[in-house]
Amino acid sequence: MDHSLSNPDPFMQAAIEEARKGLEEGGIPIGSVLVHRGAIIGRGHNRRVQQDSAVLHGEMDALENAGRQSAAVYRESILYTTLSPCPMCSGAILLYGIRQVVVGENRTFMGEEALLRSRGVSIEVLDDSQCQRLMGDFIECHPELWNEDIGR
Amino acid sequence: MDHSLSNPDPFMQAAIEEARKGLEEGGIPIGSVLVHRGAIIGRGHNRRVQQDSAVLHGEMDALENAGRQSAAVYRESILYTTLSPCPMCSGAILLYGIRQVVVGENRTFMGEEALLRSRGVSIEVLDDSQCQRLMGDFIECHPELWNEDIGR
Repeated sequence: MDHSLSNPDPFMQAAIEEARKGLEEGGIPIGSVLVHRGAIIGRGHNRRVQQDSAVLHGEMDALENAGRQSAAVYRESILYTTLSPCPMCSGAILLYGIRQVVVGENRTFMGEEALLRSRGVSIEVLDDSQCQRLMGDFIECHPELWNEDIGR
Repeated sequence: MDHSLSNPDPFMQAAIEEARKGLEEGGIPIGSVLVHRGAIIGRGHNRRVQQDSAVLHGEMDALENAGRQSAAVYRESILYTTLSPCPMCSGAILLYGIRQVVVGENRTFMGEEALLRSRGVSIEVLDDSQCQRLMGDFIECHPELWNEDIGR
């Protein structure tokens, strides 16, 4: 089911807005927001191209922009990301004890969902067609950038 | 055996220098260097305090400062870090396919060494007394900063 049409999740929509911002900047269209008790406390998008960054994936950028938070805040937070989280972002989720992750899609890239689940993280995959289109189109046009981003 | 006395590794010494720099800046004393074909291509230290950063652990800072590299470079690189890598930094190692990690010590903190080994990463732990002293002293003086850094 395509949740983006039937029941748009406002936080996933915010993550998609971030992904689109990244695309407009010439970057890789992956966005993320960190939500605590119903409010966005950090938002971000992949900045490989824009800042020549090797570490600022969308999720990492959202975490960085959320600033230094206590373990209690992370434990109550939900991370939204347009794409299944790679090993680095999954590691950050484990480091900070984030217990809930909402993933836009995992068809163009399957991240470390199995590892996260094995450590008790709850993962919901929305299988969102907007997210798929953003990444599908980007990978088709810029396979070399995408491969660089995932260490291939 | 304390390698730092009998056979000092110049790259671990460079990572320790980074850790000391961080300490002088008022930060958490963890340092790292990325070495490719015998040359340091990125060096860094934990910047939680200095930049209010949630993502720039020592290893992440070294990777960031190494800039955007190809998968081929990462595969031939060795990551030196004064402390056993946390889940986030271990995830970055997996993302980029770094196959060799040299760890200063894992007594004050045991990171995801088992996960890394299970994915084929070679890990050498030097059990270095300088690294232990740096972290031991810091944790004793600033337990709250240290707990924040590892999501506790």
